Amino acid sequence: MKMLITEMNNIDLDRYLTEKKELVNLALHNLQPVSGPEAVRAAMNYSLEAGGKRLRPILALAVAETLGYGEEDVINVACALELVHTYSLIHDDLPAMDDSDLRRGKPTCHRVYGDAIAVLAGDALLTLAFEVVAGYGMKPGRAEKAVRIGAELGRAAGVTGMIGGQVLDLEAEGRELTLPEIETISVMKTGALLKASVICGAIAADAGEKELVLLSRYATNIGTAFQIVDDLLDVESSTEDLGKPAGADQERFKPTFPAVLGPEGARSKAEALYHEAIETLDDLGRPVELLTGLAHKLVYRIK
Amino acid sequence: MKMLITEMNNIDLDRYLTEKKELVNLALHNLQPVSGPEAVRAAMNYSLEAGGKRLRPILALAVAETLGYGEEDVINVACALELVHTYSLIHDDLPAMDDSDLRRGKPTCHRVYGDAIAVLAGDALLTLAFEVVAGYGMKPGRAEKAVRIGAELGRAAGVTGMIGGQVLDLEAEGRELTLPEIETISVMKTGALLKASVICGAIAADAGEKELVLLSRYATNIGTAFQIVDDLLDVESSTEDLGKPAGADQERFKPTFPAVLGPEGARSKAEALYHEAIETLDDLGRPVELLTGLAHKLVYRIK
Repeated sequence: MKMLITEMNNIDLDRYLTEKKELVNLALHNLQPVSGPEAVRAAMNYSLEAGGKRLRPILALAVAETLGYGEEDVINVACALELVHTYSLIHDDLPAMDDSDLRRGKPTCHRVYGDAIAVLAGDALLTLAFEVVAGYGMKPGRAEKAVRIGAELGRAAGVTGMIGGQVLDLEAEGRELTLPEIETISVMKTGALLKASVICGAIAADAGEKELVLLSRYATNIGTAFQIVDDLLDVESSTEDLGKPAGADQERFKPTFPAVLGPEGARSKAEALYHEAIETLDDLGRPVELLTGLAHKLVYRIK
Repeated sequence: MKMLITEMNNIDLDRYLTEKKELVNLALHNLQPVSGPEAVRAAMNYSLEAGGKRLRPILALAVAETLGYGEEDVINVACALELVHTYSLIHDDLPAMDDSDLRRGKPTCHRVYGDAIAVLAGDALLTLAFEVVAGYGMKPGRAEKAVRIGAELGRAAGVTGMIGGQVLDLEAEGRELTLPEIETISVMKTGALLKASVICGAIAADAGEKELVLLSRYATNIGTAFQIVDDLLDVESSTEDLGKPAGADQERFKPTFPAVLGPEGARSKAEALYHEAIETLDDLGRPVELLTGLAHKLVYRIK
């Protein structure tokens, strides 16, 4: 059994998260288009700068750092992941889908800009993500890595990943699901992009095959743990804490891990996945404090 | 002044178009995902196989052939262009946007599969387009070309291209526009992807800088000519001929070229652009019958 990370590490980690979040926010700001119609750019900017933990880009940065690569080698790839994440939030919130009014503590994109612009702003963020990966690949020696990263990102976002997960999630409303079904939805809807964040960071940092396998296993485990904790927070928190309507999953009869396993069972599953994730890192032969700390943060976060 | 293409050429060209359309249809069929939830895959397949002229992929194939490259060098890039085109049709037809019931002679995607699945099917086709480009780039010696093609595709689809054009189009409804405003919308909404089709085909075929400039000029001219002819057909045709509601532009007070220039003025502008396009090809130093023939077909088509 791993020791829990120390108080000191926690302070360092919080500083790391704050610094990287600022770095990502600045980079995302600079990647936004400076021409094109104002309405859609405003909507993109609104959703992109509405806050958020920047977990996916920070995972990519942390993996690259673990493998000895600096921010400049991976920051744009990291941002592409957040662009895909933000597009998916905008489209998932649409009246035709989850019909959500609140996201990250603010009115959702379509509530502010209307449905048409929200659809287009989502489309534009998804498109921009791949444009950013192409831009990353224009620098010498990066083309092959960019192609692999584009393929990973496409797979994570596509019908066997996020889009497929959203379809299953919509189909599941009001229906009782088994644990394997809930796991499948979680892996596709949330896990796929978290895994891609780890893998894309690793590709940008020239990871070897063995490293990719280990990091991929780490990513799969923390992805599911993250989703379980998300479900738990939906049950246990207030709307103010969450920045989106609390209890929304229950209200819409969405299948969740706590609904099937109970809150205690869900919590201990998340902890077991956390331990599996950090044990996987043992074989990496790299300094793993950062990835261990991030895994801990995901599972023991308050909101 | 160029001679009009001969009767014989026309028969050859029709055969070429039929052959390439079948080639593209087969390739598109094979690129569709074989796993993931049935609902979204059915919707993707429905819109992708609803017909259509396959103009964009055929342009890419024809440019590559003009530069001495075969189908196998460019077919997947060609398909990526059609995937982007089809995604844009699905999203443009949504109730929140143009609210169209009919497309290519069939009920629109959201009329058959519902709004949620239509949004997701569009997202999935856009995502697949970039995945296909990444897949193209995995083959030896292609990574740098794939990165450039991804960048072109992203630019054409993004806020300064198709998405921006759709925003301006939505904003223009019921408003009188000037000719330059109509031209801007046309260049962004239709011209950008037609141009990308030519450019991506050229990049896949290792075009030089000068060739890219000439082909880009050709593409810009035929792009606008194509839009003008589209507008004319909307005024002059029946719904049955068009496969989408005829007169829809007028009904929705959409700004069109014939509305500003009159039908005669619009027709002669399209012809002037056609002549400019084919004159540009003179400097290419390549056999240009194919590109000349395609330009002719675009401007003198019946539907």
